[in-house]
Amino acid sequence: MLELKNIAILGASGYTGAELVRLIATHPGLCIRALCANSRAGMAYADVFPHLRHLDLPNMITIEEVNFAGIDLCFCALPHATSQDIIPKLPTTLKIVDLSADFRLRDPKVYARWYGRVHSAVEMQGEAVYGLTEYYRTAIAGARLVAGTGCNAMAGLMPLLPLLQAGVIETDDIVIDLATGVSGAGRTAKQGMLHAEVSEGYRAYNVAAHRHLAEFDQEMSAIAGRAVKVTFVPHLLPQNRGILATCYVKGGAEAIHATLRAKYDDEPFVIVLPLGQAPATQHVRGSNFCHLGVVADRHPGRVMVFSALDNLTKGASGQAIQNANLMLGLPEAMGLNLAPLFP
Amino acid sequence: MLELKNIAILGASGYTGAELVRLIATHPGLCIRALCANSRAGMAYADVFPHLRHLDLPNMITIEEVNFAGIDLCFCALPHATSQDIIPKLPTTLKIVDLSADFRLRDPKVYARWYGRVHSAVEMQGEAVYGLTEYYRTAIAGARLVAGTGCNAMAGLMPLLPLLQAGVIETDDIVIDLATGVSGAGRTAKQGMLHAEVSEGYRAYNVAAHRHLAEFDQEMSAIAGRAVKVTFVPHLLPQNRGILATCYVKGGAEAIHATLRAKYDDEPFVIVLPLGQAPATQHVRGSNFCHLGVVADRHPGRVMVFSALDNLTKGASGQAIQNANLMLGLPEAMGLNLAPLFP
Amino acid sequence: MLELKNIAILGASGYTGAELVRLIATHPGLCIRALCANSRAGMAYADVFPHLRHLDLPNMITIEEVNFAGIDLCFCALPHATSQDIIPKLPTTLKIVDLSADFRLRDPKVYARWYGRVHSAVEMQGEAVYGLTEYYRTAIAGARLVAGTGCNAMAGLMPLLPLLQAGVIETDDIVIDLATGVSGAGRTAKQGMLHAEVSEGYRAYNVAAHRHLAEFDQEMSAIAGRAVKVTFVPHLLPQNRGILATCYVKGGAEAIHATLRAKYDDEPFVIVLPLGQAPATQHVRGSNFCHLGVVADRHPGRVMVFSALDNLTKGASGQAIQNANLMLGLPEAMGLNLAPLFP
Amino acid sequence: MLELKNIAILGASGYTGAELVRLIATHPGLCIRALCANSRAGMAYADVFPHLRHLDLPNMITIEEVNFAGIDLCFCALPHATSQDIIPKLPTTLKIVDLSADFRLRDPKVYARWYGRVHSAVEMQGEAVYGLTEYYRTAIAGARLVAGTGCNAMAGLMPLLPLLQAGVIETDDIVIDLATGVSGAGRTAKQGMLHAEVSEGYRAYNVAAHRHLAEFDQEMSAIAGRAVKVTFVPHLLPQNRGILATCYVKGGAEAIHATLRAKYDDEPFVIVLPLGQAPATQHVRGSNFCHLGVVADRHPGRVMVFSALDNLTKGASGQAIQNANLMLGLPEAMGLNLAPLFP
Repeated sequence: MLELKNIAILGASGYTGAELVRLIATHPGLCIRALCANSRAGMAYADVFPHLRHLDLPNMITIEEVNFAGIDLCFCALPHATSQDIIPKLPTTLKIVDLSADFRLRDPKVYARWYGRVHSAVEMQGEAVYGLTEYYRTAIAGARLVAGTGCNAMAGLMPLLPLLQAGVIETDDIVIDLATGVSGAGRTAKQGMLHAEVSEGYRAYNVAAHRHLAEFDQEMSAIAGRAVKVTFVPHLLPQNRGILATCYVKGGAEAIHATLRAKYDDEPFVIVLPLGQAPATQHVRGSNFCHLGVVADRHPGRVMVFSALDNLTKGASGQAIQNANLMLGLPEAMGLNLAPLFP
Repeated sequence: MLELKNIAILGASGYTGAELVRLIATHPGLCIRALCANSRAGMAYADVFPHLRHLDLPNMITIEEVNFAGIDLCFCALPHATSQDIIPKLPTTLKIVDLSADFRLRDPKVYARWYGRVHSAVEMQGEAVYGLTEYYRTAIAGARLVAGTGCNAMAGLMPLLPLLQAGVIETDDIVIDLATGVSGAGRTAKQGMLHAEVSEGYRAYNVAAHRHLAEFDQEMSAIAGRAVKVTFVPHLLPQNRGILATCYVKGGAEAIHATLRAKYDDEPFVIVLPLGQAPATQHVRGSNFCHLGVVADRHPGRVMVFSALDNLTKGASGQAIQNANLMLGLPEAMGLNLAPLFP
Repeated sequence: MLELKNIAILGASGYTGAELVRLIATHPGLCIRALCANSRAGMAYADVFPHLRHLDLPNMITIEEVNFAGIDLCFCALPHATSQDIIPKLPTTLKIVDLSADFRLRDPKVYARWYGRVHSAVEMQGEAVYGLTEYYRTAIAGARLVAGTGCNAMAGLMPLLPLLQAGVIETDDIVIDLATGVSGAGRTAKQGMLHAEVSEGYRAYNVAAHRHLAEFDQEMSAIAGRAVKVTFVPHLLPQNRGILATCYVKGGAEAIHATLRAKYDDEPFVIVLPLGQAPATQHVRGSNFCHLGVVADRHPGRVMVFSALDNLTKGASGQAIQNANLMLGLPEAMGLNLAPLFP
Repeated sequence: MLELKNIAILGASGYTGAELVRLIATHPGLCIRALCANSRAGMAYADVFPHLRHLDLPNMITIEEVNFAGIDLCFCALPHATSQDIIPKLPTTLKIVDLSADFRLRDPKVYARWYGRVHSAVEMQGEAVYGLTEYYRTAIAGARLVAGTGCNAMAGLMPLLPLLQAGVIETDDIVIDLATGVSGAGRTAKQGMLHAEVSEGYRAYNVAAHRHLAEFDQEMSAIAGRAVKVTFVPHLLPQNRGILATCYVKGGAEAIHATLRAKYDDEPFVIVLPLGQAPATQHVRGSNFCHLGVVADRHPGRVMVFSALDNLTKGASGQAIQNANLMLGLPEAMGLNLAPLFP
């Protein structure tokens, strides 16, 4: 009989918090002991997220009310900039998976430039391990604090890192054209995320200025051994979940495809489609899978590499649980084998 | 170690077939041995449904190619009118859950009237047990052939049957106003189901003439002990999954609410919301749950009773597995505890 | 050569404001002289609504900045409860079409009960003419202040008023089941109207308690000559525009259909479909048309009457222009003949 | 008093046919005399497209039944490959705007390569004028046969042609990443265009192999004076209308922006947004406008150029009417000033 690991979720009233609860609901090794959101303290979780009404969950409490003594691991799904204030105050023995952007960048100066503020927990920035499981598995298993990869960053890094590592693409001419669903913007009411504004429409946002560029720069440069600076344009899709990255690179399609297969064929959540096929976001919805595809352009030496994932699952909460499994000594894929929901 | 039960799926190329595969993918007691669809025979299932690409599944074959010797139970997700031709040819020892409309109506004359044709397997119509688990649990457990409840019928029967049984509503003035997502119409290409025709729009269809009326009549009259003929108007929603039934009845709200709670409080998949609350289809998406709500009208003695369920899950494939579990001696809820996907 | 009438729009930063501008853009008799929204004063209108960027429009100003001297008619698209504070301060010679709920109810006590506050301009409540053009045409033509009909109220009143007037339906057993798109909730950021909350979902709201009930009571009782209190359940659709009302009434289908045709056959914007057909919201999108349909139930003496309209057009801004045309002595249908946008 | 020009529409049962009727409904210079679709001959147009029910239109007839004697111009909205069979049989004096792909390519060999068949009306291929109004205005005004620009081609050519003409971008490294709504796929029932397949999803299609590449090659090479071969990846959006092209080019953002403004500032339907702003498809929906935007990348010398248009309007039927106006001696923008529908 498996001994359950005890979990707390800080920031449980947002979409990534709810996604954690959804996934843990059928995870055989984790048990939710505390659900926190200061603004909703005292409420039943079913009143915040009625779709989880069938679960037997503790009521919402404030962070101050949590008894961390019995908690094995804490998911921190707080907003950006809040995490860095809260996490240093948590017990130093507590394992933490942070889903915010606060601990993703190792260089405080880079953080300050992209986020426009001095980091309030600089001493922990160096300690945090970047949560890209397929690349930092060992470090994550031994980490106390793991910083979840950004959802868009995940979509770009998964197809491109192996290619940079293997040297099969040019490093100075990479375009990542990306489209994402709205749930990445969170549950806070914003005019631009109203159904009437988003549905039946498509537009670019934060063109060439999205903060996930900092993650691209950090990780791609590290793996390539030289500065890599991609061109990156995210777009907003009229759908809730799903990211598709269309990457325009220069290299050989067969070498690229072979490199991806060599890297990912043994990975539990990354699937490389047959050469010539492109993935679709509706085929990974609600799952922890990432589908990759490679298609040759009609120009010899130019190739499109695609990746599709669910921003709330592989791009946030599924990834977080994958890392938590490692940190807790559980099988990495435990509880994450849910099949995508289609249609 | 649980011994796996071997499953075949006939008609695996449609949405209910794919939903069966999705659910069985994480079901600890079932194993798919055969996937059939004559039109797709020879194909890999991933080429028919790429969202299930991560699963290790047999290739599609024809029904004729299935070796039923080792099959414990067969799901029949064939189109209406096809099932009645195929099922009589299957081994008589094979347990069958049929998801079509072919064996739902016990009276051949009623079938002929609603479906405009003489039933080709009249002898099996009487044998089939109607698959409304919460009402026919014992019979289902002992049945060889279970006929899945229609998705719209399920949405109307769940809230109304207990009220008719308890006699807490008038029987001659019941209105079921229902809205359903498009996946109930299946994967066959139809102009009326194109995205451009359905999205951003709402309309009634088959007004007062939908075939699920026959199921309403059969089941409501049986439980009430007198003829009950509801008024029923289905509408088509611009969404993929989900049915909401808004039932207008005459009775007392508190008695109605208490009756539903008494009937369903111990049921694993039916949740009665607090009096005064109404359910939402997005809160049951992808799950086997049915949410019921009761709200009093401003007119004393008039009440709205709501039910929300996912037409592909509780309305079709989840229900089918719930029944299969019973037929196979497995725990009824096994494999069906997936939490709804929201957003 | 037509002399243009000069128009001001108060509350131009919301959806009904933008819809007024869209319609006036191709209206040959109206010219926009002032666009007001205190929160956006100083902005170009294209920065508030980029889809109207091609128009030559004045910049946004505050209400205080408007020079009403040259204005022939003012559309007031301010939020509920704000209109009643602003309108009494406008010049007494100014013609006004108010799109808010503030002046729809003639009885201050009824207003206070439904809106939970004492009306701040009681003296003007009696003066205002209810903006249901097809019923108050003459009074509207001579009015100084017209109070636009609520969008849901419009959808219920159009099919039912003629039937109550002609006495062809029972008055004490009327159900209006209604579904509406999200744009009726306005452009203010609200969590419940986020794309992620609304899309792929359907639910009832304000069950049996929606404020448009007050309009139903007022207008139906007036035309029937006795108290009429309908049962009314509105639902929220995952689409931007469109209302479908499904009305369950008791009467004869042919008499009902004939009554509607007699009432509306000469109306420019109301179309009665052939008996047995039901309308669809996607077929009136973006237009000022209202489609009505009548279908007999299988129960003799029970009938479904449907109406479909665009909540922002016939339900708000198109209706407002129709009334403004009358008040300004222009042809009633001027500028309102835009065909629906489908798909 | 304007003398109305008489119009026939061949292929009136598809979306571009309906869009022509929608636009002509409020066009002051055109009158529809014949609506043809052999498969629907004899039907009322309202039974094919109920949203146009308010119009007084002729019934559908076969092409053979049309009396072309009184027709000034014929819109041919037939499927690809059908047009080339029909058009040669039409009276040689009839002006024709063809919306299919059949006459877009001037070189029969290029046609044969991209469309996989020998053109059946090679002699007319040379005669046809390519319908990109902003570039072929004079030739279109004098043409007998105009071949409508493909919707995706329009979205790519509008931003790029001026840049190639002015020589402000590199010609050998252009990426067009494009996303389009579903209505471009037409009204024919196809599984891949079902609501359940398209909604809540995003995927690339015809990667690097879309036939509109032939139009890009033809027109870009002609204007650049050398072979230009772009990289082009179209994606399918979960929305009905709208195309957004995100073009990745190499050049200076200010020079690019100035070039676009110089080219388009006097055009009635092309709007260049301020430098740094990107357009959105929801802001051109239902209109003949094309919005262009220019944003500099963080890499000096790399620039994103965006274009947004409605595939059914500027991308098909609006463009066709714009050309027809020229061919008939009417003001080019007549009937095309409808404002976009938002939300």
